[in-house]
Amino acid sequence: MSAISRRPPRRRAGAQFSGPRPDDPRVVRTRAAAVEAARSLFLRQGYVGTTMDDIAAAAGLTKRTLYNNYADKDALFTQIVGDVSDFAKRFARELSDEFGAQVSVANLRAALDEFARRLALAVLRPEVIALRRLLIAEARTFPALARDYYESAPGQVIDAVAKGFARLAKRNLLHVGDPRRAAAQFAYLVVGEPLDRAMLTGVAPASDDALAWAREGVETFMARYGTGRAGGRRR
Amino acid sequence: MSAISRRPPRRRAGAQFSGPRPDDPRVVRTRAAAVEAARSLFLRQGYVGTTMDDIAAAAGLTKRTLYNNYADKDALFTQIVGDVSDFAKRFARELSDEFGAQVSVANLRAALDEFARRLALAVLRPEVIALRRLLIAEARTFPALARDYYESAPGQVIDAVAKGFARLAKRNLLHVGDPRRAAAQFAYLVVGEPLDRAMLTGVAPASDDALAWAREGVETFMARYGTGRAGGRRR
Repeated sequence: MSAISRRPPRRRAGAQFSGPRPDDPRVVRTRAAAVEAARSLFLRQGYVGTTMDDIAAAAGLTKRTLYNNYADKDALFTQIVGDVSDFAKRFARELSDEFGAQVSVANLRAALDEFARRLALAVLRPEVIALRRLLIAEARTFPALARDYYESAPGQVIDAVAKGFARLAKRNLLHVGDPRRAAAQFAYLVVGEPLDRAMLTGVAPASDDALAWAREGVETFMARYGTGRAGGRRR
Repeated sequence: MSAISRRPPRRRAGAQFSGPRPDDPRVVRTRAAAVEAARSLFLRQGYVGTTMDDIAAAAGLTKRTLYNNYADKDALFTQIVGDVSDFAKRFARELSDEFGAQVSVANLRAALDEFARRLALAVLRPEVIALRRLLIAEARTFPALARDYYESAPGQVIDAVAKGFARLAKRNLLHVGDPRRAAAQFAYLVVGEPLDRAMLTGVAPASDDALAWAREGVETFMARYGTGRAGGRRR
């Protein structure tokens, strides 16, 4: 795209209020404020219980500015879920990098411990728990959104872990017959109990608690999938 | 309680319509019909979207009969959750019995496989998934109900498994340092992935899928907690 074509477009036919470019810092700030206000209101008072007026007020925006950026509550909700999916995508990509050539017999256990720690802290955040609960609460209205979230957040991370484990298995650092199963077992050994508890009680675990599940999860994972070369049971 | 005191009470002060005894077969049938209708309507159209009129109609009861048995929707919702908790209580009790003296080196693996199978089929039923989703959806209105459910369903079953594992550890059939942790790892190795997926997508797994997670969960569990005497990795 040439420099000239990136200048703000003139008012387009059909666009009632043509605004500045989407990457304009003011637009970025405005949209971030709208999303943050919507997230916090949806989580606190539910999707149905929140109006565009509430969101504009909480974000310190005029209604006109809010509507110029997001046509309706649906658009904001979709954006919020998309942000978490993007986070999961980055997390999955980092993961693939981490399980690359630099993992060796000597540092495999440390790498898995570090990954489990990051996974636990990422998944068991109060915002993630609250968003998951909101998605389930709104599933009657937005059935696709919770399904998409599953695919793009836990599903995507587990797929990335599976690829990483397959690579480690090829190098004989792990004994893994079914990488997807091993990756899911890893994930739910690490976050299963605290996540299910948090989903029902609405209370995210203390990070000490989350980290203890992570450590013990790796221990159990290695008992099955370790080759015995990369450090056995810690005493 | 004497036989005489179990006779139906005379009209009590304050009770506008004193009915027959709660264990009268007609009362049991009426209450079961009301609960079944309420469960199915709550799951289909949500708690807020369901009226006592809807429930009476679906159960084939007059409104008066319905109100004589359940004062309001809250009472029905509480009853539905209570029924699942009662199921979990029975399941937990059977479990304690199963992990008793009759488990030996020879049948430990088979006992754990059978227990994992039953756990998976009990937890991953469509009705349980739907109820869990409903509890989360209604948590803003009934925060205590989902919390109580956690304590009395998964919480109670994990506690029972922990006691069973502690007993097996005393007999040197398992190596378990922290029975509660081992029990929770067992549970989420067995149901973690399919349960989390079902909670978000609303689709309970096929039973073949559930049973594969159960088998592989026991395999991983035994790799860490087995003594090596009770059957190693299956080929």
